[in-house]
Amino acid sequence: MRAAVLDAPGAISVQTFPDPTVVKPTDAVVAVVAACVCGSDLWPYRGVSAGRGRMGHEFLGVVVDVGAEVTEIRTGQLVIAPFLWSCGHCVHCRAGWPTSCLVGGGYGAEDRDGIMVDGGQGEFVRVPQADGTLVVADVTPQDSRIPALLSLSDVMGTGYHAALGAGAGPGRTIAVVGDGAVGLCAVLGARHLGAERIVILSTHPDRADLAVRFGATDVVAARGDEASDAVRELTEGVGADGVCECVGTQGSWATAVAACRPGGSIGWVGVPHEVTDGLPLFPMFRPNIGIRGGTAPARRYLPELLPSVLDGSLDPGPVFDLTVPLEDIAAGYAAMDDRRAIKVLVVPSGSV
Amino acid sequence: MRAAVLDAPGAISVQTFPDPTVVKPTDAVVAVVAACVCGSDLWPYRGVSAGRGRMGHEFLGVVVDVGAEVTEIRTGQLVIAPFLWSCGHCVHCRAGWPTSCLVGGGYGAEDRDGIMVDGGQGEFVRVPQADGTLVVADVTPQDSRIPALLSLSDVMGTGYHAALGAGAGPGRTIAVVGDGAVGLCAVLGARHLGAERIVILSTHPDRADLAVRFGATDVVAARGDEASDAVRELTEGVGADGVCECVGTQGSWATAVAACRPGGSIGWVGVPHEVTDGLPLFPMFRPNIGIRGGTAPARRYLPELLPSVLDGSLDPGPVFDLTVPLEDIAAGYAAMDDRRAIKVLVVPSGSV
Repeated sequence: MRAAVLDAPGAISVQTFPDPTVVKPTDAVVAVVAACVCGSDLWPYRGVSAGRGRMGHEFLGVVVDVGAEVTEIRTGQLVIAPFLWSCGHCVHCRAGWPTSCLVGGGYGAEDRDGIMVDGGQGEFVRVPQADGTLVVADVTPQDSRIPALLSLSDVMGTGYHAALGAGAGPGRTIAVVGDGAVGLCAVLGARHLGAERIVILSTHPDRADLAVRFGATDVVAARGDEASDAVRELTEGVGADGVCECVGTQGSWATAVAACRPGGSIGWVGVPHEVTDGLPLFPMFRPNIGIRGGTAPARRYLPELLPSVLDGSLDPGPVFDLTVPLEDIAAGYAAMDDRRAIKVLVVPSGSV
Repeated sequence: MRAAVLDAPGAISVQTFPDPTVVKPTDAVVAVVAACVCGSDLWPYRGVSAGRGRMGHEFLGVVVDVGAEVTEIRTGQLVIAPFLWSCGHCVHCRAGWPTSCLVGGGYGAEDRDGIMVDGGQGEFVRVPQADGTLVVADVTPQDSRIPALLSLSDVMGTGYHAALGAGAGPGRTIAVVGDGAVGLCAVLGARHLGAERIVILSTHPDRADLAVRFGATDVVAARGDEASDAVRELTEGVGADGVCECVGTQGSWATAVAACRPGGSIGWVGVPHEVTDGLPLFPMFRPNIGIRGGTAPARRYLPELLPSVLDGSLDPGPVFDLTVPLEDIAAGYAAMDDRRAIKVLVVPSGSV
């Protein structure tokens, strides 16, 4: 099969690997229908973080084989893979944190037994712990909702996690820092949770427009102190009830803290790669600003959000504004790196 | 009147000042019955933070005069003063965050109009915004519950804030980092909220004993990684459901994060004076550890906790293990600084 590889910062190639097979009795093999490039893929792509090799952790596809102990997932089903695989029955999975599964792990790397778990940006993936990991969607690979369903693999679940962490709900005003795919999905998540007012911080008119289409009620076309001041002005000096931190830099955190009202909460999902100095606590102490978030438990949110995507009331599909065949995935990375694309959908040439 | 003054690091004196009077129509003047020394008073005392002048922000006393616009509080009442004064009707007070009151402030400093608000470690205090600030306790100054009631001014409310932030409740396991007066009150707060298991980290046997008396079910006599490892061992490798961070140093935060289970919450109330490098976010990202806390809204908690103190079901009184007359308050500071005393109660010589 063909699959994407990061050879060095900035250098993505598509290479040939053996087709994966069921190795463990709890495995499934999935033929990828659609995959995508994540904002976090750009960190190693840019050389900001280490990491080489097989890429991609967001995909959906059709099950082509299952191991002997797989009882829920069956060949032929279209399944969505959350961005981490997990057993579904350990203490952390049961508590709703499959992201901390005692036996689980990620894609594009070897599992604890040294057996490759393929990346999502390829034609096939061996998915460990298939019953605990995969969620069935009763649609065909040609369904127009495929992009929206694919978003449940990571970006929509992550935006939803930010909105939950920010305490989005009826009557609440939520500010969203970050107008990337996650920030836009945080807008959707906040709307899904019933937030009354959703303020997107965006200096990119096209992204701001999409945010408004997703439910943002106000656009602040500014950054830094100017942006947090604008949020305070919009809220009669009070600040937002909650803020979604969807970037992960020292500057975005400072903006989030300054935009938040006393007693408010910051839902944080931006991988903190650039918060090199740590989070300054003193500005959060007197105003009692809390933080909740981290790696989104996409697996937990999948069954919760799936019905809304299927009935059309939640449609994150438009975050994908560029589709490339797998063989051209390098162009997709470049487009996201240059901010020419919000999020890139990748279609394996040999897909169903 | 006589009142305590920090002249320089390590140098506390008691000096004579004019008796305070009602200056604004919303003021009350309170004759202090009992005051105390706060762990946070030790920061300027040790020269770790700036700050000189009149000291003390925890006191209760008898109202001796009220301004023309004070309608709730009356002369002769015994009142508890939370450690910040607040109006009770601005947007933040109404939302439950009097700590961010738009007109409020602290003790031992001038108000926004340049008029002195006395420190609590003295014979009398002019309390601004008396109706919003003071809470009446229907007891006499000789009541045996005075120490317990005084604790509601700050330390018990702060411990309760930590326990709430850590998510204490039925079935929960809560670890408490810090065995000072606040940590001990966090134990009480966790028990008050129905926590099933309360683990105190303490290397001081006398404080550990008091923690057990307050409801701790387990004592970990260790610090740092050894302590967080012990909490994990006590919880079958899972970690505590919530952790009360009652110290505020880089080391105590690292212990709190390491002791917390995935998806758990750290209730933080330790003034972050020594978290100089900021809070490292990366260790909290994958396990989804949240933080909630800051300056405790003691005013909000006062009516909630007062009945339990009055009926004896909540008795933080034993955190006071040394009582000194106001004239000897320097000895009280020294005892707390040397950790010979957990918390020092101060009685003005001319008190009721």
